[in-house]
Amino acid sequence: MAENALQAGLLADHFRRVRARSEDLCEPLAIEDYGVQPIEDASPPKWHLAHTTWFFETFLLTPYLDGYRAFDEAFAYLFNSYYNGVGEQFPRPLRGTLSRPTVDEVMAYRRHVDEGIEELLDREGNGRAEVVSRVVLGLHHEQQHQELLVTDLKVNLGLNPLRPAYRDVPAGVHAAALDVPLEMRSQVGGLVEMGRDESGGTDFHEFMFDNEGPRHRVYLDDFDLANRPITNAEYLEFIDEGGYREPLLWLSEGWSWLQTFDIGAPMYWRRDRSGGWMEYRLSGGEAALDPHSPVTHVSYFEADAFARWTGMRLPTEVEWETVASRRRGVDRDGFVDAQRFHPRPSSTCAASDSSDEVIHQLFGDCWEWTQSAYSPYPGYRPIEGALGEYNGKFMASQQVLRGGSCATPADHIRATYRNFFYPKDRWQFTGIRLAKDAASRTRT
Amino acid sequence: MAENALQAGLLADHFRRVRARSEDLCEPLAIEDYGVQPIEDASPPKWHLAHTTWFFETFLLTPYLDGYRAFDEAFAYLFNSYYNGVGEQFPRPLRGTLSRPTVDEVMAYRRHVDEGIEELLDREGNGRAEVVSRVVLGLHHEQQHQELLVTDLKVNLGLNPLRPAYRDVPAGVHAAALDVPLEMRSQVGGLVEMGRDESGGTDFHEFMFDNEGPRHRVYLDDFDLANRPITNAEYLEFIDEGGYREPLLWLSEGWSWLQTFDIGAPMYWRRDRSGGWMEYRLSGGEAALDPHSPVTHVSYFEADAFARWTGMRLPTEVEWETVASRRRGVDRDGFVDAQRFHPRPSSTCAASDSSDEVIHQLFGDCWEWTQSAYSPYPGYRPIEGALGEYNGKFMASQQVLRGGSCATPADHIRATYRNFFYPKDRWQFTGIRLAKDAASRTRT
Amino acid sequence: MAENALQAGLLADHFRRVRARSEDLCEPLAIEDYGVQPIEDASPPKWHLAHTTWFFETFLLTPYLDGYRAFDEAFAYLFNSYYNGVGEQFPRPLRGTLSRPTVDEVMAYRRHVDEGIEELLDREGNGRAEVVSRVVLGLHHEQQHQELLVTDLKVNLGLNPLRPAYRDVPAGVHAAALDVPLEMRSQVGGLVEMGRDESGGTDFHEFMFDNEGPRHRVYLDDFDLANRPITNAEYLEFIDEGGYREPLLWLSEGWSWLQTFDIGAPMYWRRDRSGGWMEYRLSGGEAALDPHSPVTHVSYFEADAFARWTGMRLPTEVEWETVASRRRGVDRDGFVDAQRFHPRPSSTCAASDSSDEVIHQLFGDCWEWTQSAYSPYPGYRPIEGALGEYNGKFMASQQVLRGGSCATPADHIRATYRNFFYPKDRWQFTGIRLAKDAASRTRT
Amino acid sequence: MAENALQAGLLADHFRRVRARSEDLCEPLAIEDYGVQPIEDASPPKWHLAHTTWFFETFLLTPYLDGYRAFDEAFAYLFNSYYNGVGEQFPRPLRGTLSRPTVDEVMAYRRHVDEGIEELLDREGNGRAEVVSRVVLGLHHEQQHQELLVTDLKVNLGLNPLRPAYRDVPAGVHAAALDVPLEMRSQVGGLVEMGRDESGGTDFHEFMFDNEGPRHRVYLDDFDLANRPITNAEYLEFIDEGGYREPLLWLSEGWSWLQTFDIGAPMYWRRDRSGGWMEYRLSGGEAALDPHSPVTHVSYFEADAFARWTGMRLPTEVEWETVASRRRGVDRDGFVDAQRFHPRPSSTCAASDSSDEVIHQLFGDCWEWTQSAYSPYPGYRPIEGALGEYNGKFMASQQVLRGGSCATPADHIRATYRNFFYPKDRWQFTGIRLAKDAASRTRT
Repeated sequence: MAENALQAGLLADHFRRVRARSEDLCEPLAIEDYGVQPIEDASPPKWHLAHTTWFFETFLLTPYLDGYRAFDEAFAYLFNSYYNGVGEQFPRPLRGTLSRPTVDEVMAYRRHVDEGIEELLDREGNGRAEVVSRVVLGLHHEQQHQELLVTDLKVNLGLNPLRPAYRDVPAGVHAAALDVPLEMRSQVGGLVEMGRDESGGTDFHEFMFDNEGPRHRVYLDDFDLANRPITNAEYLEFIDEGGYREPLLWLSEGWSWLQTFDIGAPMYWRRDRSGGWMEYRLSGGEAALDPHSPVTHVSYFEADAFARWTGMRLPTEVEWETVASRRRGVDRDGFVDAQRFHPRPSSTCAASDSSDEVIHQLFGDCWEWTQSAYSPYPGYRPIEGALGEYNGKFMASQQVLRGGSCATPADHIRATYRNFFYPKDRWQFTGIRLAKDAASRTRT
Repeated sequence: MAENALQAGLLADHFRRVRARSEDLCEPLAIEDYGVQPIEDASPPKWHLAHTTWFFETFLLTPYLDGYRAFDEAFAYLFNSYYNGVGEQFPRPLRGTLSRPTVDEVMAYRRHVDEGIEELLDREGNGRAEVVSRVVLGLHHEQQHQELLVTDLKVNLGLNPLRPAYRDVPAGVHAAALDVPLEMRSQVGGLVEMGRDESGGTDFHEFMFDNEGPRHRVYLDDFDLANRPITNAEYLEFIDEGGYREPLLWLSEGWSWLQTFDIGAPMYWRRDRSGGWMEYRLSGGEAALDPHSPVTHVSYFEADAFARWTGMRLPTEVEWETVASRRRGVDRDGFVDAQRFHPRPSSTCAASDSSDEVIHQLFGDCWEWTQSAYSPYPGYRPIEGALGEYNGKFMASQQVLRGGSCATPADHIRATYRNFFYPKDRWQFTGIRLAKDAASRTRT
Repeated sequence: MAENALQAGLLADHFRRVRARSEDLCEPLAIEDYGVQPIEDASPPKWHLAHTTWFFETFLLTPYLDGYRAFDEAFAYLFNSYYNGVGEQFPRPLRGTLSRPTVDEVMAYRRHVDEGIEELLDREGNGRAEVVSRVVLGLHHEQQHQELLVTDLKVNLGLNPLRPAYRDVPAGVHAAALDVPLEMRSQVGGLVEMGRDESGGTDFHEFMFDNEGPRHRVYLDDFDLANRPITNAEYLEFIDEGGYREPLLWLSEGWSWLQTFDIGAPMYWRRDRSGGWMEYRLSGGEAALDPHSPVTHVSYFEADAFARWTGMRLPTEVEWETVASRRRGVDRDGFVDAQRFHPRPSSTCAASDSSDEVIHQLFGDCWEWTQSAYSPYPGYRPIEGALGEYNGKFMASQQVLRGGSCATPADHIRATYRNFFYPKDRWQFTGIRLAKDAASRTRT
Repeated sequence: MAENALQAGLLADHFRRVRARSEDLCEPLAIEDYGVQPIEDASPPKWHLAHTTWFFETFLLTPYLDGYRAFDEAFAYLFNSYYNGVGEQFPRPLRGTLSRPTVDEVMAYRRHVDEGIEELLDREGNGRAEVVSRVVLGLHHEQQHQELLVTDLKVNLGLNPLRPAYRDVPAGVHAAALDVPLEMRSQVGGLVEMGRDESGGTDFHEFMFDNEGPRHRVYLDDFDLANRPITNAEYLEFIDEGGYREPLLWLSEGWSWLQTFDIGAPMYWRRDRSGGWMEYRLSGGEAALDPHSPVTHVSYFEADAFARWTGMRLPTEVEWETVASRRRGVDRDGFVDAQRFHPRPSSTCAASDSSDEVIHQLFGDCWEWTQSAYSPYPGYRPIEGALGEYNGKFMASQQVLRGGSCATPADHIRATYRNFFYPKDRWQFTGIRLAKDAASRTRT
């Protein structure tokens, strides 16, 4: 019981810390910024603040806290995202049309639910393990929405012709970068294991999502993996050599996509009048493209076409995870905690290994598109009930990304973490890491 | 010159009064309410406040005030509505995605432009008549946007599942209404005149839009006009007798429209669980439908189908104007000045004539759909240049409405005033007044 | 009774002649051509042949011929166009997906119904007047579809990259044309009458559609009307001077339309590689544009913008009809009977008047867009029942055209005839005749 | 050289046989049936006949037959499907709008190209191996279009309210079926190999598509596979128990799909007035659903939801291929050669193994949806040039199907064959075979 109290105390600390982080991220916002939904994919900050609260209310307070009274009955509908098992949802494309509840009311909602959760964590009794497990899930859920809050906000501000700033970034981050030569590192395959088994559900740091398991064997050929992400300068070469005009480089859907939406560069890139490339960053305005920084905000179609153009390919999930699992010492400086809000040039980053196999930025800075479709692992079973909708029902038509980004909380990521987006999506901080077959080393 | 100064002083008074009215209308809003665009047609309040300011800046300060410096260069693009002659426009459907400029910044923009206009009105010199004429135009333009501000806000609040209130309304307005029997009043036709000639362009109260002229002769048969608008109770009978399910009552486009959008009642009506009808009003919540109030928020398709169901028809423009021109003593209580924000039951209204030909609510409460397509009058010429885009370029596919509504400023309306909307539109306070051919009196 | 028999005999002759004409128009077609629907507006020839037959079956054989057995029960649904009063309709956009019934089966359907009608016309008895009246209506209905058959076929063949020919045209039609100088003819207005009263319903040549009446008085100012339609050369000047790029010339909807669909010339015009303009005609291939021929296949938006560019305007319905009613001696050579399938240069046409007020091609060659929205005349009442859907329910959002075209049967047209299409439509043979206010004569 | 001649002779025989099969399949068609495109996915038969011919012309005659003259220059554009490397394509959604070329002209095109190919096969010389290899590819390409020709035609006829027959089927096929009990067969996994290496490119029967290789190792857990496909009766139970109304059974995209398109049963199923289920088959009309036949025309979404409802899942590619590779004696009766055009009840089929591990219909009758997204095998490289667009560029957002169907030519299929469609697609003969984890045997 003493152990439980200790654990509860630690969890309450995590709870307060994670919840506060969401609000800290909103600190630079004007009230007007909280409500905007510039595209269907990008929800308003206010919605993220309320939905993460709804998650705790719906899956913890309502079922577990005796006598709990909902803050507002209508919120069950307004702030449900996609949990059909819970009930109907306010239509996603209309989230930006809700001027009410106001920001103040949403903050009051957060306080109301926070108090309920703290009360719940203080209690002993039946269902305690499930309560703890769900609070941990709710916190990781909130961390995912913290990332979306940042990337959705970037859509809002970046599409506004005024190009407002979100917040200042630490000085000198992008200054004086050197190039790190692109090198392919040989990796040994074989019969490897990937994924995790279900365990540690009640410990914040040992948490895993259901889609990361079960751990299972995969046969893997030897392969090479790039020592760093592709830079803006390298991507610009692809553009300048006509990459967006050569259909043979593109997946069929990608070719249709770029023609339909007249795509010719990553999101947030714009040509200025003299033909130079500018880029919108969360620090505001439009800066000249930094040649040394990793290219970001590319779709899977673009990442895949770029890789084909180089004669290489994107890594698979198992390749990525095999390498990442061997690394030690994650560089926390590439995460949202550092408040840079943009990927760093590789030369400014600590490497993830001290050996001659230096590999930069596997974790943080940019999510890395993999060649792997988002599918269940052998033996995968979603959680029972509505919480089972969390991950499993999206296992069609999406691609896996790995490693986290400059908008991800550092204690949210791990080697087995599977993120997933549609091939066309590019409002996340997504980048490109190359791979190739070991067999092709001699061929090339 | 003394006369000019007097006139300038009066105009400056009007200017301050009309500009202040726009801001007064926003007084009950939360900051969050200023930015929302719930449907493409309904612009955010912040946009209305900025666009009306842009109008003064673009058509007065930039061309006429020497040394004028724009408040923000980007606003020329952001707040242009549809004046192609001036330049490109920020896409209308995205108006609700602009969290910046903030409300405070828009208010500062208003102050900046207000000062410029006052300075301009103080000056003498060339172009003075044009300046005065354009200020008057700008004020009537602003009054039109005041009406839209109210109706667009109603869309925002009325579609929000929380059904928030805009503001309280004077007590007792809808209480204790009696029915005024529906009667058709005989009207004598002949060779009549309608419209106005261009004159009084520099006097606020003598203003006319270009589409109201020239005055011209029209031959008009005798006809009957209803003594009051159709009530909710009468419209409900149409619904209950299957009006929305009988295709022979509907225009072809109207039938497609109601099937595509699954329309079965006026906008803002909803059935409660017991089958009764509720209605959203700007006073908030959902109230039971008042049987005595005029039906409002109907499309032309609905107004036309209802009229056909009664065996009658909607009036033409010339019929409406002929009757309205003979009336004296407009009842100002039906306009936005009275701050009711909803049409009144006819029994609570002063009649527009003292004779036995009492006709209620020709002006105010509800716009009245006419059978007349919005077309140019014989000899119509739009203003030269970009200002000519104000009215003339919309003369296709729309219908004329007459008389103003509870969201219209009282000193904005007149008998010759031509409003126009698409047949499907119903977010304005639109209602139904019946007419019929005199010849059919004996037949029926 | 003898008179009845004579009348019945004449009507049977008309019936055979009109029905045969539909099939004659199809004579040059390959079986493959009968089924194609290139755009939603343009129905397959097979559908026209079947639908006109359905009209006779539905409105005559089923109600009036005792013991009539439907050719195929499913046709009631398949070949109903838009008569909601009769029943559900097969979706219009899918008409081109029906490979069955085959052409042979449709021809057998025609024979089956033709026999029924002839039998019906042979009978005496109750309802005879209604039968005769409906047969006459059915024949004029079939004539309308003959025109659509030609214009819909042109869409099919003209959009096919192979540009096949429909049929050869008489030699020398477009050769050696001279220009007829464009002149404006003064017309005297006043209190005029327009439209027709209901009469002659049982005489094929005295027929009128319900929307042509009642005859009514209209006050009309003096005006000028052009002596001939606008030519390709004149329209080309509008293009060359940037007409399609100057927003101030266009109705707002028109400007959106041309930007959305990237419109820069009339339908069927294409630039060849050397920048010259080619035009698809029903004689096949692509010929150089004939400068002397009337411009055709223009939308109302284009006609209106062109007129504005000249400083003039399009005529109103009443103006057009007033002039047309005074003319004598319609030139039948401009109609489908002449099998030219394209408008003729004015210099090759007989004038419609022998005086110094020569006006060319009021009738035939091209439909002429008017400035008048398609609205009911004062006192208009549609026919009772489903046949009332014929014209009345389209009285919204469309514009009136007058005079018929090279695809119209000559005995189908008259001065009071009102055709109507949407402002964007241009697959009919539509052209431009200018008008202007008499008052502006001195001004200009 | 003698060997070459022999080989060439055999290949010419295959060429004639396969080409003739396409025309045989069209034998029952009316001319009208050749041109129809009922939905964007389903091309007209005429298009299939021309496109397969275009393939031989483009990839063989033009590059390899000296002095070859194109049948019609425009066909290069009209009948290119999706080969961007070759040139622009006539828009796919408009294929049904081309009434020309006529069927006779397309047949003449086929003759013209057939002669060219036979002439080419007679020649010796450089590039011979490539020629042979491309002819073999072209024939397998044509076989794929034979399947599409049948399934596309079924869309045409099946959506026609007249429900016409394509052709009669052998009597008694669906009569007197007995149920085969559904049993799960245990399968042993381990480190297995799947796929094929490139070889046999010049032998018709040894052909493989590039996406079937390279052969590679995969680690596979033990699993169970169903002994036969799911029947209509079993699927009906899923419907009757509310399967289409329970969101927790569905992928998120699938749930949106069924709500958007109001899906509640497999394609071609319709309820009759008494509530019983009818099904359209290519034998015409509408027959009562056969409870014993495999359910077909289901989307991946439906297959996946059904499997989840049973507590099982769909097989992966490697599972399916591992079992299929061990089987001997493919039952040719389930392919298009048998001209049944519908899947057979399992009880009427030979089993694919004689042991106690009887497994019915792995090949033929219905394609079987797998849980595997369509992705490249490790080491996959598409063919160089435009032919590389054949398979590789579709490796996103699609699912793999295995085994062939009643519309597949028997000599076109093999254990390594990978078919792929979008999860929503159901106009192919697609069915459901269940699998489950061996580990779950004891758990369940």
